[in-house]
Amino acid sequence: MSLYSELFYCQDVNEFFSDRNAILAMLNVEAALARSQAIHGIFDTEYAKIIAGCCTPENIDISKLKKEIKLGGNAAIPLVKQLTKAVKNRDFEASKFVHLGATSQDIIDTATVLQIGQFINWLDEKLLKLKVELAKLTEKHKNTVMVGRTLLQQARPITFGLKTSAWLEGVCRSIERLCEMKSRLLVMQLAGAVGSQNSNLTHEVRQTFAEILKLNHAYSWQSQRDNINELATNLGILSGTLGKIAKDISLLMQTEVGEVFEGAAEGKGGSSTMPHKRNPVTCAAILANATRVPHLVGSMLSSMIQEHERSAGNWHAEWEVLTDIICLTAGSLEKTIELISGLEIDEKRMLANIEISQGLIFAENVSLALAKRIGKIQAHELVEKACKSAISKNKHLKEVLKENNVEIENMDGLFNPENSIGNSVEIVDALLKKYE
Amino acid sequence: MSLYSELFYCQDVNEFFSDRNAILAMLNVEAALARSQAIHGIFDTEYAKIIAGCCTPENIDISKLKKEIKLGGNAAIPLVKQLTKAVKNRDFEASKFVHLGATSQDIIDTATVLQIGQFINWLDEKLLKLKVELAKLTEKHKNTVMVGRTLLQQARPITFGLKTSAWLEGVCRSIERLCEMKSRLLVMQLAGAVGSQNSNLTHEVRQTFAEILKLNHAYSWQSQRDNINELATNLGILSGTLGKIAKDISLLMQTEVGEVFEGAAEGKGGSSTMPHKRNPVTCAAILANATRVPHLVGSMLSSMIQEHERSAGNWHAEWEVLTDIICLTAGSLEKTIELISGLEIDEKRMLANIEISQGLIFAENVSLALAKRIGKIQAHELVEKACKSAISKNKHLKEVLKENNVEIENMDGLFNPENSIGNSVEIVDALLKKYE
Amino acid sequence: MSLYSELFYCQDVNEFFSDRNAILAMLNVEAALARSQAIHGIFDTEYAKIIAGCCTPENIDISKLKKEIKLGGNAAIPLVKQLTKAVKNRDFEASKFVHLGATSQDIIDTATVLQIGQFINWLDEKLLKLKVELAKLTEKHKNTVMVGRTLLQQARPITFGLKTSAWLEGVCRSIERLCEMKSRLLVMQLAGAVGSQNSNLTHEVRQTFAEILKLNHAYSWQSQRDNINELATNLGILSGTLGKIAKDISLLMQTEVGEVFEGAAEGKGGSSTMPHKRNPVTCAAILANATRVPHLVGSMLSSMIQEHERSAGNWHAEWEVLTDIICLTAGSLEKTIELISGLEIDEKRMLANIEISQGLIFAENVSLALAKRIGKIQAHELVEKACKSAISKNKHLKEVLKENNVEIENMDGLFNPENSIGNSVEIVDALLKKYE
Amino acid sequence: MSLYSELFYCQDVNEFFSDRNAILAMLNVEAALARSQAIHGIFDTEYAKIIAGCCTPENIDISKLKKEIKLGGNAAIPLVKQLTKAVKNRDFEASKFVHLGATSQDIIDTATVLQIGQFINWLDEKLLKLKVELAKLTEKHKNTVMVGRTLLQQARPITFGLKTSAWLEGVCRSIERLCEMKSRLLVMQLAGAVGSQNSNLTHEVRQTFAEILKLNHAYSWQSQRDNINELATNLGILSGTLGKIAKDISLLMQTEVGEVFEGAAEGKGGSSTMPHKRNPVTCAAILANATRVPHLVGSMLSSMIQEHERSAGNWHAEWEVLTDIICLTAGSLEKTIELISGLEIDEKRMLANIEISQGLIFAENVSLALAKRIGKIQAHELVEKACKSAISKNKHLKEVLKENNVEIENMDGLFNPENSIGNSVEIVDALLKKYE
Repeated sequence: MSLYSELFYCQDVNEFFSDRNAILAMLNVEAALARSQAIHGIFDTEYAKIIAGCCTPENIDISKLKKEIKLGGNAAIPLVKQLTKAVKNRDFEASKFVHLGATSQDIIDTATVLQIGQFINWLDEKLLKLKVELAKLTEKHKNTVMVGRTLLQQARPITFGLKTSAWLEGVCRSIERLCEMKSRLLVMQLAGAVGSQNSNLTHEVRQTFAEILKLNHAYSWQSQRDNINELATNLGILSGTLGKIAKDISLLMQTEVGEVFEGAAEGKGGSSTMPHKRNPVTCAAILANATRVPHLVGSMLSSMIQEHERSAGNWHAEWEVLTDIICLTAGSLEKTIELISGLEIDEKRMLANIEISQGLIFAENVSLALAKRIGKIQAHELVEKACKSAISKNKHLKEVLKENNVEIENMDGLFNPENSIGNSVEIVDALLKKYE
Repeated sequence: MSLYSELFYCQDVNEFFSDRNAILAMLNVEAALARSQAIHGIFDTEYAKIIAGCCTPENIDISKLKKEIKLGGNAAIPLVKQLTKAVKNRDFEASKFVHLGATSQDIIDTATVLQIGQFINWLDEKLLKLKVELAKLTEKHKNTVMVGRTLLQQARPITFGLKTSAWLEGVCRSIERLCEMKSRLLVMQLAGAVGSQNSNLTHEVRQTFAEILKLNHAYSWQSQRDNINELATNLGILSGTLGKIAKDISLLMQTEVGEVFEGAAEGKGGSSTMPHKRNPVTCAAILANATRVPHLVGSMLSSMIQEHERSAGNWHAEWEVLTDIICLTAGSLEKTIELISGLEIDEKRMLANIEISQGLIFAENVSLALAKRIGKIQAHELVEKACKSAISKNKHLKEVLKENNVEIENMDGLFNPENSIGNSVEIVDALLKKYE
Repeated sequence: MSLYSELFYCQDVNEFFSDRNAILAMLNVEAALARSQAIHGIFDTEYAKIIAGCCTPENIDISKLKKEIKLGGNAAIPLVKQLTKAVKNRDFEASKFVHLGATSQDIIDTATVLQIGQFINWLDEKLLKLKVELAKLTEKHKNTVMVGRTLLQQARPITFGLKTSAWLEGVCRSIERLCEMKSRLLVMQLAGAVGSQNSNLTHEVRQTFAEILKLNHAYSWQSQRDNINELATNLGILSGTLGKIAKDISLLMQTEVGEVFEGAAEGKGGSSTMPHKRNPVTCAAILANATRVPHLVGSMLSSMIQEHERSAGNWHAEWEVLTDIICLTAGSLEKTIELISGLEIDEKRMLANIEISQGLIFAENVSLALAKRIGKIQAHELVEKACKSAISKNKHLKEVLKENNVEIENMDGLFNPENSIGNSVEIVDALLKKYE
Repeated sequence: MSLYSELFYCQDVNEFFSDRNAILAMLNVEAALARSQAIHGIFDTEYAKIIAGCCTPENIDISKLKKEIKLGGNAAIPLVKQLTKAVKNRDFEASKFVHLGATSQDIIDTATVLQIGQFINWLDEKLLKLKVELAKLTEKHKNTVMVGRTLLQQARPITFGLKTSAWLEGVCRSIERLCEMKSRLLVMQLAGAVGSQNSNLTHEVRQTFAEILKLNHAYSWQSQRDNINELATNLGILSGTLGKIAKDISLLMQTEVGEVFEGAAEGKGGSSTMPHKRNPVTCAAILANATRVPHLVGSMLSSMIQEHERSAGNWHAEWEVLTDIICLTAGSLEKTIELISGLEIDEKRMLANIEISQGLIFAENVSLALAKRIGKIQAHELVEKACKSAISKNKHLKEVLKENNVEIENMDGLFNPENSIGNSVEIVDALLKKYE
């Protein structure tokens, strides 16, 4: 995980995918297999107990295992070897039944799903937390007037709550998708070398195996990787949604904008040479992840082209990439919660910024008001000219319009930001109700 | 679409995304907007009729529009200009109400969704067709014995139906995902410049607009692009699933394997210099698409980081990429249907190939049979040695075992491929029932 | 090329890769092949003249060719068929010698290199133009003081010329790389079906073939695609360099920054609903391309894994992707030249923006000045506190320092931006000299 | 580096990028900075000695540093803090001069280049080793006849040496590119907060700094990342070249082909359930890397769009991705050397496989021989029919031709593979001479 294990990542989720936890998950799968086979009379229950009893990480020499992975090409081969040896030390007979009828990929894929299951629980909880924080922020600022921006230009006023309600919607749709995915994702893999099952992997054994591990039943997906990819792509979408939030905040934190800030913390966001800066450190980490994850998702999709009943390379290409996608997205999620819950808002600056354009952002109001009388295109053209004039003379648009004797009812109202937020408040109310 | 419009693509779907159809979709959106506004009294119904009457591609000079896109940066700006002019030619008053209160992105995004809607209908139909073809193939070959291969090595026998049933499952899960996605994807966009709606885009106007276009209601998603990305990623997964099928078939078509062939057609698959070849031309096209689509999906995900209320670049980055993903995946789907429905199977060669290894692929049978008596690891080691001996002496494994006086019951049965297909047939039956 | 052929692309380069030009290039290759073979006595010179005479696009029915591509899987097969027919119509004997000994890939690859050659000439010229424009801009603004920004925060003053000199360096290094690449890239492909050459493709024939087409000699690179990929990656780097320029300009154009603007043009950058905006339309197009190109480069690299002597899919995956990379990068380059040569600079706003932070950006000056006396860390901490105090009291930093009785020599000088630009001017001078 | 540190990676290069080595490189940069400044009189030489003396990893608490990275957003900030503290413990005065005038990015970028320098030395040596091994293999098998394959179909005979000479060329062109790149890549970064240099980073200090670290001089490239990307893309190309080799070998190892094998090693390539298999374990690892690297290169290119004088996110996005690209490519390179030097060739099987098609692969010979008499197209058609007949009747092509009374001189010669290898041997000789 490198020097940056805390900058880009989340400790809890890193832990789910640690070497030790990966090995523990594989051992849990071997134990479940032995228990299921014993339950259905493939061999004696005593042997299953002995095998299961040996399925503890302490029986595995991890650094030896890493070396041996190079020979067999996956982690299950040396694991089974070490496990069998441990069982043999306790009971020679029992050792005959370790990993019986299974193939390496059964163990690795099911173990990966178990680790994913841990992550999914964490994810559910954290997404709910983020949803709640975003809803709170949205409620609080549903009337806070600020300028809306398109193509990085001030456009028309909105409220800050309207902006954050769009963030909220993105997050809530991700929750929906992740929910729909679960039944396809959290499935067993146990079908033997070529996916055809065998006399040691009967229908009953497989059902029990799934039940013990609290996974859904599935036929072989050894070279059909759509489910694993559905996780990857859904996390890709979530990462993009979080990246969009961080991008907005980093832009609002610009010295020249200054409307919103990452929460301060002792020593946070400082620069080694410019002590005054409040760097968007958390945003930068989320944005870095959002730059990387799309490519990693692409990598997963590329690896779907798996040959025959097990691939020579593309299955292997998934292993670290999926972990990276999970761990980076988890990092972004944890950081976004921190970001949203600590966000500082400068409402005064928001209002002040609306005045920067000297009335220009209210040009559409004027345009629409005029359009009723002189037609849309004509109004657009007239206002466009007035705006150019205001810019070149460095005057307020209202002033220029007056100088040009443009007649409009309620001129002042047209230039009042609060009158220009459309249905911002109603939209926010509707959305908060929807996602309550 | 280049020289390769028929090699990689599908004509029908290319057509949905032609210049003319793109413009027609935008015009349909403008017409629906005018009608909705008139229905709710924003302006007179007569004007809406006039506007809608002008919303025909004949009123648009496409090559002029393409030139003007460069100035405004999107297709809606020159379209509205040309449309307004056409309306003005018929009725000056009506021209004031064209595109009233809307923003370019409202038109473009909703029009894109309409085009996507056309594609989704096509997709539903074609996926059903593919599912039916795969089910037929699977049923037909559920007992056809062939060798299963892992890491490009012969492993153990399966049936060809088992192999195709896994393809079928992948396709059926894609159908499921695409189905769940529809309600999120087929939505309107109509919220004005900064997504806040306005007096010309009231709640009622927007509801009617959605109804006319048969889309779901939605608040602004101008810079929340998760739904569009869900389409992209689901197509990415589908493309991978189709690519896996093409990869398997292209490998089975190898001169040295020769078990399965693309259907022949006059002049198809020939080489300009090697008249005897049966090149996997259709597979190559699907595989080319499957190489490209993952990167295009990554491109979509990268463009999710959209600034504020409308992005300066990333919205624009979506336009052609999403079309490419759709058109390439459609091409692959059409070609896969053709491939599956015309597939030629050489059952004799399948059986003959099992014999290539001189019994080695039955080594696991021997190993499992021995394991009951002497333990798994011991059996593995004994058989491994026998295999090496068979290889070095170029003898059949059965022969070597006999020479070594290895005692096993029913030796011949262990080497009969039909006894080694596990539950292949039962699995196929269960899957065919599930996806009936 | 879609509706957006002028927004993202460059007409000239699109033209190099048009259907007609692609076919012309292939015909030129066939003509060169026939001429080379005749020169070395493979067949009569008269026949070569007849063949070469038939190598005009008028002899090719493009729409028929597109349909037939689907059968053979590449463009050369139907092209050779149509060409042979045309030759046969003129002289039956000559028709026997069309495409003699060559393979489809010989024709397609060499034709692609010819088209690339056209593009490279265009590229050389345009990069020189951009270099000159950037040098002019840099020279003009080498003393124009503005603020430097890190992590989107104002940091310390620089000059605008320093900023643009960094852009210039990036462009000049791309020129260097492209130059080094040429000898590897602009090479022939002519080695027959499996790259082994044959009696019709002798060493002499091949040398002459290369000379006629003004390409370097090369042995078969049918499934060694590093050279093609070197072009792709170098364009990827160039696209990134151009994207960085567009990103900076789009940020400097923000309403709240307003230091730099895209050149105005009649109707350019306007919004359909906000007549006052000056949208970064050109930047948006360049940035859209810069979002897409990295993924396309990744796609090229993925397709390098080509099987044996010709790939089933990955060769095909290159065709449209390489064209997209070239055409998008060409579009960005043309647009960047336009952008740089029309750029409007607001020097007053640049100076005014430095004052926004009320002296905070000069904190490092104070810190460095103090460090000499009290140590770096102590100085950093003291200044950090003063900055926080300035922010919370909304006061100028100078004022706060005075209130706190911080003693520093030449306080006013520390807060004069012109004293804080380091070696900006010297660096610019050195770079302009280097790249003269 | 996960469980798979030995499967996908190379220990030596992993070590260059270990936490400890990363910190050591940064400390070396700080030491060089202090020494350079002292040499040019910025402060006393004694202080520089003290600072340099403290620049040892033992003075850094790595786990504390990792935690603090989260606050400042990069590794240099907490490193400088800890280093300064260590210096202060030895000499308070000296501590004032640590990191003087420099910015975090100066340290991090220069340190990264130092690590890259270590890697480049390793790379030079290993590429030379691979070149030598490939040349040996090519020389040895320049006359070993095998079949060439296009689109996964047998095409015409070549020699195995011709195939490997193409691999060799790819590797040699990568060596060329990497060589040209060095002067641009191995450069210093030292220009202060915004790249403008300052009184503590004079021209002389910077020159000396570069000399001490044996790097080339460079102006600020803080947000111009083309050079770093040139490394990434060149490694991407190399990774593709190695992936192509592994793909070919994995295909040649197929049970049904069996022409070439990975060198055996105790316990290598075995399957847990199929003791007879010789899995392409090394190829699978190289192919997995080749699937991943293109996407990582795309990620680097995406991160080139860096804002202003330092990016908020995209700089950060480079860090781990560049390391991944380097370490994966290094892993592939080390494994390819092992693969090539241990490769086992089955020449008999190569010859036997040519006979699989019952003469069909010699159809072009017949076609060319006939073409002289009856014209190319006519010959193609006649031979195509004969081939179809041979297939349907399961007869040798020669036999069918005789039955059909097709008259050709030297029929047997046409079907002798040794007569059909074109200039394979001459090409190999020329290439071996070229790359001697």
